[in-house]
Amino acid sequence: MKKLNWGLIGGGAGSQIGPAHRLGAQADGNFAFVAGALDHRPDAGRSFAAKLGVAEDRAYGTWQEMLDGERNRADRVDLVTVATPNSTHFGITKAFLEAGFHVLCEKPMTMTVEEGEEIVRVAARSGRICAVNYCYSAYPMVREMRAMVRRGDLGAIRLVVTNFSHGHHADAGEADNPRVRWRYDPRLAGVSGQMADCGIHALHLASFITGDEVEKLSADFASCIADRELEDEAMVCYRTEGGIVGRLWTSAVAVGRQHGLDIQVFGENGGFRWVSEQPNQVMWTPTGGRTQIMEKGEAGLSGEAAELSRVAIAHPEGFPLAVANIYVDLAATIRGRIRESLPTASDGLRSMAAVHAAVDSAERDGAWVDARPPMFR
Amino acid sequence: MKKLNWGLIGGGAGSQIGPAHRLGAQADGNFAFVAGALDHRPDAGRSFAAKLGVAEDRAYGTWQEMLDGERNRADRVDLVTVATPNSTHFGITKAFLEAGFHVLCEKPMTMTVEEGEEIVRVAARSGRICAVNYCYSAYPMVREMRAMVRRGDLGAIRLVVTNFSHGHHADAGEADNPRVRWRYDPRLAGVSGQMADCGIHALHLASFITGDEVEKLSADFASCIADRELEDEAMVCYRTEGGIVGRLWTSAVAVGRQHGLDIQVFGENGGFRWVSEQPNQVMWTPTGGRTQIMEKGEAGLSGEAAELSRVAIAHPEGFPLAVANIYVDLAATIRGRIRESLPTASDGLRSMAAVHAAVDSAERDGAWVDARPPMFR
Amino acid sequence: MKKLNWGLIGGGAGSQIGPAHRLGAQADGNFAFVAGALDHRPDAGRSFAAKLGVAEDRAYGTWQEMLDGERNRADRVDLVTVATPNSTHFGITKAFLEAGFHVLCEKPMTMTVEEGEEIVRVAARSGRICAVNYCYSAYPMVREMRAMVRRGDLGAIRLVVTNFSHGHHADAGEADNPRVRWRYDPRLAGVSGQMADCGIHALHLASFITGDEVEKLSADFASCIADRELEDEAMVCYRTEGGIVGRLWTSAVAVGRQHGLDIQVFGENGGFRWVSEQPNQVMWTPTGGRTQIMEKGEAGLSGEAAELSRVAIAHPEGFPLAVANIYVDLAATIRGRIRESLPTASDGLRSMAAVHAAVDSAERDGAWVDARPPMFR
Amino acid sequence: MKKLNWGLIGGGAGSQIGPAHRLGAQADGNFAFVAGALDHRPDAGRSFAAKLGVAEDRAYGTWQEMLDGERNRADRVDLVTVATPNSTHFGITKAFLEAGFHVLCEKPMTMTVEEGEEIVRVAARSGRICAVNYCYSAYPMVREMRAMVRRGDLGAIRLVVTNFSHGHHADAGEADNPRVRWRYDPRLAGVSGQMADCGIHALHLASFITGDEVEKLSADFASCIADRELEDEAMVCYRTEGGIVGRLWTSAVAVGRQHGLDIQVFGENGGFRWVSEQPNQVMWTPTGGRTQIMEKGEAGLSGEAAELSRVAIAHPEGFPLAVANIYVDLAATIRGRIRESLPTASDGLRSMAAVHAAVDSAERDGAWVDARPPMFR
Repeated sequence: MKKLNWGLIGGGAGSQIGPAHRLGAQADGNFAFVAGALDHRPDAGRSFAAKLGVAEDRAYGTWQEMLDGERNRADRVDLVTVATPNSTHFGITKAFLEAGFHVLCEKPMTMTVEEGEEIVRVAARSGRICAVNYCYSAYPMVREMRAMVRRGDLGAIRLVVTNFSHGHHADAGEADNPRVRWRYDPRLAGVSGQMADCGIHALHLASFITGDEVEKLSADFASCIADRELEDEAMVCYRTEGGIVGRLWTSAVAVGRQHGLDIQVFGENGGFRWVSEQPNQVMWTPTGGRTQIMEKGEAGLSGEAAELSRVAIAHPEGFPLAVANIYVDLAATIRGRIRESLPTASDGLRSMAAVHAAVDSAERDGAWVDARPPMFR
Repeated sequence: MKKLNWGLIGGGAGSQIGPAHRLGAQADGNFAFVAGALDHRPDAGRSFAAKLGVAEDRAYGTWQEMLDGERNRADRVDLVTVATPNSTHFGITKAFLEAGFHVLCEKPMTMTVEEGEEIVRVAARSGRICAVNYCYSAYPMVREMRAMVRRGDLGAIRLVVTNFSHGHHADAGEADNPRVRWRYDPRLAGVSGQMADCGIHALHLASFITGDEVEKLSADFASCIADRELEDEAMVCYRTEGGIVGRLWTSAVAVGRQHGLDIQVFGENGGFRWVSEQPNQVMWTPTGGRTQIMEKGEAGLSGEAAELSRVAIAHPEGFPLAVANIYVDLAATIRGRIRESLPTASDGLRSMAAVHAAVDSAERDGAWVDARPPMFR
Repeated sequence: MKKLNWGLIGGGAGSQIGPAHRLGAQADGNFAFVAGALDHRPDAGRSFAAKLGVAEDRAYGTWQEMLDGERNRADRVDLVTVATPNSTHFGITKAFLEAGFHVLCEKPMTMTVEEGEEIVRVAARSGRICAVNYCYSAYPMVREMRAMVRRGDLGAIRLVVTNFSHGHHADAGEADNPRVRWRYDPRLAGVSGQMADCGIHALHLASFITGDEVEKLSADFASCIADRELEDEAMVCYRTEGGIVGRLWTSAVAVGRQHGLDIQVFGENGGFRWVSEQPNQVMWTPTGGRTQIMEKGEAGLSGEAAELSRVAIAHPEGFPLAVANIYVDLAATIRGRIRESLPTASDGLRSMAAVHAAVDSAERDGAWVDARPPMFR
Repeated sequence: MKKLNWGLIGGGAGSQIGPAHRLGAQADGNFAFVAGALDHRPDAGRSFAAKLGVAEDRAYGTWQEMLDGERNRADRVDLVTVATPNSTHFGITKAFLEAGFHVLCEKPMTMTVEEGEEIVRVAARSGRICAVNYCYSAYPMVREMRAMVRRGDLGAIRLVVTNFSHGHHADAGEADNPRVRWRYDPRLAGVSGQMADCGIHALHLASFITGDEVEKLSADFASCIADRELEDEAMVCYRTEGGIVGRLWTSAVAVGRQHGLDIQVFGENGGFRWVSEQPNQVMWTPTGGRTQIMEKGEAGLSGEAAELSRVAIAHPEGFPLAVANIYVDLAATIRGRIRESLPTASDGLRSMAAVHAAVDSAERDGAWVDARPPMFR
């Protein structure tokens, strides 16, 4: 099977997410990395792309150059990944969709709800895939949880409790560290800090697994390091359209939690728990029964969970391969086998709507507000 | 050292908490079990007391009989434990305090805030100890966490996150099980279900460890099993008098959590986590450092943590001995060596005030309300 | 029910195991602590006993005094616990058995196999109980594992793997610490160090759970701290009379293991694992199925496991109450309801035979030797 | 940087290890998959290679064809991976080395010690790399442990305890399953079953981390499923050339263990533990101190551990990327930056010598035998 052509925007030298995308795209042999505009400094971007094996004429200085260069090639890229600073996601994604490219956009997809609705419309018009990198949803055992909910193993879902907390921004002495500071600067980060950075992953995961969307919410934000303009800690209570009770805690000052993304879903007939630091297991408890340890790779898993598990039971797979699973889904979908689990622009839009609703609620002492984007009400 | 005399009210045959009190009082040889009114059915109570070795003349049919019988004895009981149905705690506790007995009351100490204030006043007037059985605070490693906060190991506390969730009321088919049903019946349980049953333990623990009290809160209650009149699930956001951000989640429908009481405290200089199902360890992370596993019995623990640890490091001690630690504190205090860690009527009152505040907030869509008892404002 | 009378020999001030016995005997109200010879220094022993509430005339200076004092009393002790230095266990136990007392002896029951056989004979002749404090076997979930094996849940047992390793003797700089040094001094500890101290607990546990006894073994001993005359580390391979393959690892220099006693049993139809630091759970895996977490206190446990669980599911119980369970068994047996799970002199003898066999094998480069006491061959 | 050319022998459709090699080679963009002889059925191999994107003229029917086809190409493969049945490793590896190719051979490298010595000699003569896929040694935290030992953090090493046990061959009813059966058939598996399949990974890991090699050993083998001709369970006691005490347990009938490879190393100044199912953490305990949780990606890791960690702290990486790390090492070494951590033919040879020694010892009742290959004595 011929490899698909892939291009990357952003993800230059020193980027954290760049390597995960390069590995994700290439790991399973689905994509060839043939084009890139990797840095906001044109020369740095060109030379880094060349170092990574991209041909000279496709090592672009800017995304606009790349758009121009690729759009008319016969062997143009099949998929563009947008891994640039958040505020540029909207413009780049929109431009490439309109030019007929499939796009994988990093989260957050946009800075505003209006932009999010625009991307949804553009994607629909273009007939192209606009995926958003909610990569935690691509862990095999997360797919399995979704399949279990759909199959009715838990019965009606009552409650979903999810956390995404870490302590990497807890050191007040590091307040001037640029990698930390921009997160709490509204000019760079937008209306929200921790909620927009981490909370939306947890919220997407809850929707993904339960198959139900946030309808309304009440939020309490805190800046635990006092001079931060944006929240570094948030609690969000919500209800889904289907009536599920939701709780979401997110914090960047939780010293001792490293990558504390976890989710618990409780239904009539059972409940389960998944923890992102040990992503290959699910703790599943049928109501009235014992807790069982489900393992990636065990016999009897559902289709996607089985397919996205590359190695045998108890051989762990981790974060980079969850990103790779997004690319597996993308390759399959581009080749015509649609993967409906792939997170798309609608998910990116819903996240933005929820973040803005949470900001609004927190400013109004926790008032309950509609968390849906206007176009989905 | 002569044993102190101890009497028990409630805790009859089949009671869950009765055995823990009998073991707790006797385990360390501090108390002799000499009097009891163990059952609301006088004959059953007398014969059960006799079976447990209580002398015939002190195996009482009712608590009033016991009050009359004991008050004039030279060898009267030094301490009375009240382990009766919740709605009777107030009356019995008050009567025994007024008659000059030390009392250990099960939680919740009262049903209303007014009753709670009355107990605080009566206890103060009487000069007797009125303790409340917040036994989780008596685990050695919980005492150690409190000592660490006091010593400043964590610096200023920013955030406390606590959960007390289980799944033992999740089976809708068991709704008529009398052991479950009364919890959600306002005539028996009062204004609150899960919050009053479990949430207050978590809230006390947070106050106990941080040394700071809840000032105001916003609550979201849910009845996940729809026909329950009282909540079986609650999220409470709060702030303490000292400005700490607090989050408390409690649920009775969290299938797969058995006894999910845990607490995380995050400060400037570090954070720790304790889980009640593994009570002999604390996970402690200094800001910027590695997580360390602290063990009950390790060298260098603070006074109370060392004193309440009976056996060597990594020999686990559990729930019944946490209850026993409350009796160790009581014996010491009665003998004149005051243990300020002992939870008292003030704690019982604050719990009631917080529960009533949470009910009020939940009824008003999460409005922030004062959570302090009027007498402490 | 009248309390039984209990006396303690050894376990003086500063003893580690003394408090566990006092708590164990008194926790459940079965025994009254009425007599003691607690210290090899008569005055210290008498005054410590008095401090603990023992009447003056039964606070003895020596075990011989206690034997003389108790044997002719109408209210003489029903049970004597022997918690003295190892080399004195044999003489004291024998004397009290011959005088018609029930005895609970600390492990190791004797120093030699011959002494062990003598105790077995004396106990049989006397008709008295001679129990040995293999208290790990009294954890509820250990009893449950035994019940599961008996019921055939695992099918034929193939393999048992057990460890008892810690790191508390790993610091070469503490070699002169008297609490460490005597363990490796043949004049005080006998023929074996770590194997006699810890290994025999693991070996007893394996026999207890599988219901099968060690027949022959091959051992490899090491003194990881070079100048120790006795082993601080040992590996023992064995076969049981029923053909089970056994492996036992024990070490005192395993830095980072605190109280690393655990056991895994593997049969045709499933396997389970129990870890002494989390004694309230068993991980059970039926062949071809998922691992399940069994919990102390869960519905459906076997008789003894249910009976020895004092508090509800997921309320942990720990080491002191495992010792207390031995006293529950003793009280029941003394009162005529025989508890066959109680470890007795036969178990104490088999341990000694296994230790001596291991020493012999280790000295002969791991030659396989008969591990059974002569009287049981 | 231009990609290196890579070819694969074996690893056809349905193979377990094939996908791990393809992913490992391509994940980081170091190798292009340009040639393959993937199946013992020539047509199946050719068509599978074509399906994976290999050009038609390099989709070979046999490894001999591939050798002939590649040896004279200007763009010949830089590295050949041998992932064929065990008995063919020797011949293929030798042939490709002699033809001047770098080779990565699956374990076991050979069936006999003599063959192993031959490969060592051929590799030395050829000046080519002969690596062996001991991929567990390429986990970042395993590299970190090795670095800690070298740096002296543990002081002199006293003891290494390692296990590799699973339960996937425990079902006697599956004895005829061909994926299980060949392991215990001497005609296909050689002299050893479980020891050769799993034990050697654990043994390599111990040598890798401690930097010390097995000198002599004593083994006890068992066939827990009785009609197996080769062992499915083994215990090996050993001593290293440097005097470290070693214990190795391996089993294929340990129901409930999934991929139970773990290692504990104990030295004068501390000990650590690593578990392959959670490969991103190490539990490290300095003597006399608390256990600390080390995390992949934490600040301050040694060079290789840092370099082989692709994503941030607490973003797990798993087995396929450990295999990929072997390819990272290979790419670096081929490009002239020698990675001395890469397992080579000497390691493959030592494994074979140890397996044969263990078989010999087990047959002679655990006699201690020299475990070194003759050429290294």
